Amino acid sequence: KSGEMAKLTKLIDNDVFRAYATYATIVLLKMMLMSLITAYYRVTRKAFVNPEDTEMFGKGENAKKYLRTDPDVERVRRGHLNDLENIVPFLGVGLLYALCGPELSSALLHFRLFTGARIVHTLAYLIPLPQPGRGLPWAAGYMVTISMAYNVLKKVWHL
Amino acid sequence: KSGEMAKLTKLIDNDVFRAYATYATIVLLKMMLMSLITAYYRVTRKAFVNPEDTEMFGKGENAKKYLRTDPDVERVRRGHLNDLENIVPFLGVGLLYALCGPELSSALLHFRLFTGARIVHTLAYLIPLPQPGRGLPWAAGYMVTISMAYNVLKKVWHL
Amino acid sequence: KSGEMAKLTKLIDNDVFRAYATYATIVLLKMMLMSLITAYYRVTRKAFVNPEDTEMFGKGENAKKYLRTDPDVERVRRGHLNDLENIVPFLGVGLLYALCGPELSSALLHFRLFTGARIVHTLAYLIPLPQPGRGLPWAAGYMVTISMAYNVLKKVWHL
Repeated sequence: KSGEMAKLTKLIDNDVFRAYATYATIVLLKMMLMSLITAYYRVTRKAFVNPEDTEMFGKGENAKKYLRTDPDVERVRRGHLNDLENIVPFLGVGLLYALCGPELSSALLHFRLFTGARIVHTLAYLIPLPQPGRGLPWAAGYMVTISMAYNVLKKVWHL
Repeated sequence: KSGEMAKLTKLIDNDVFRAYATYATIVLLKMMLMSLITAYYRVTRKAFVNPEDTEMFGKGENAKKYLRTDPDVERVRRGHLNDLENIVPFLGVGLLYALCGPELSSALLHFRLFTGARIVHTLAYLIPLPQPGRGLPWAAGYMVTISMAYNVLKKVWHL
Repeated sequence: KSGEMAKLTKLIDNDVFRAYATYATIVLLKMMLMSLITAYYRVTRKAFVNPEDTEMFGKGENAKKYLRTDPDVERVRRGHLNDLENIVPFLGVGLLYALCGPELSSALLHFRLFTGARIVHTLAYLIPLPQPGRGLPWAAGYMVTISMAYNVLKKVWHL
């Protein structure tokens, strides 16, 4: 059993894998933050979608008026969905890329660019910045994932 | 080739990794169930979104009336999206956490709490239970993932 | 350090794992393509959701008319969300399945069926094909993931 543990520890001690684990966790925590921001806007804007969520504001007709959409809530939700659409590919492709044994410097470049791009994307979405303030970081994150996918396919190709 | 196989088998024979594999699969199957529940409500409530899906109920204007939203369908869909938003971080962070070699008892506590919380969350969403019947299991699952993320970052930190 | 690299290389040199890496990357690239198709339809149909995205088409009231939904845009977005709902379970369960050391032929059968099914599903959604042109590939991909989940649970079961 201790031999197996050592083996697992080996993977997590690999520098590239540790970098992947660090940035993957940071970018997932950033995505999870979107849930809290949505909840914050729902409560402060009093804009809910489930009838059972409005009951703390009163019963019956009085509560029903809080079943509405709010532009700020919808904006955060779009940012959250965009995170899912882009972070899921990064997690999957990034893990395989890290296992392909790339140079540490080149792996760090990919992981840092992606993580930075997604943080800027969220800020640009929430502030909101005029375009291409949101489009550019979106494209940067997208290209990073494409580049890692290219490296993975070049290395493992097995149809 | 058999040497490599053995190596792979090693990872899957590690107790913590087997526990992760078990709970990750269960929670993904639970999420997949949401698709079937959505389909069930779409057919029984006759509430579709794609014109080509209504053709089994008649042609032309007769079929068009089934292109509508239904509160039960939308409720399941919200539960499904909430699953995606919360289970994706669990899968990613949980895998890295399992590879960090935590104590089996502490890993099992995290995996069981998360899986139980998400099952209760789904029941609370679909029944629906009054709040905080849905909010509490959501927060429990969220805190479990944060706790695993903290353990991962403490172990692997490599910016 | 070179010993660790070799260990990582071992995993990526395993035939089943290489097949998983290939198909997982392909199916993620296919999912990422949905973002570009959405952007293409948003620009050609002039149908946006964020006010800051319409500014290239004029200022004020003139730009506001492009804040609208378009059936083609919504169709691609539904296909994208369906990808997320189905590809996330495939990625998670498929990784665990690949680590369980299945026969290469049987692993290839699962990965090829899933990837083919999701490509046909997207075509059926976008063309669109009459049902069950979209329902059948959806069900095929779903069953493949269930089959892999069954194999994983049979092998690792540790509650």
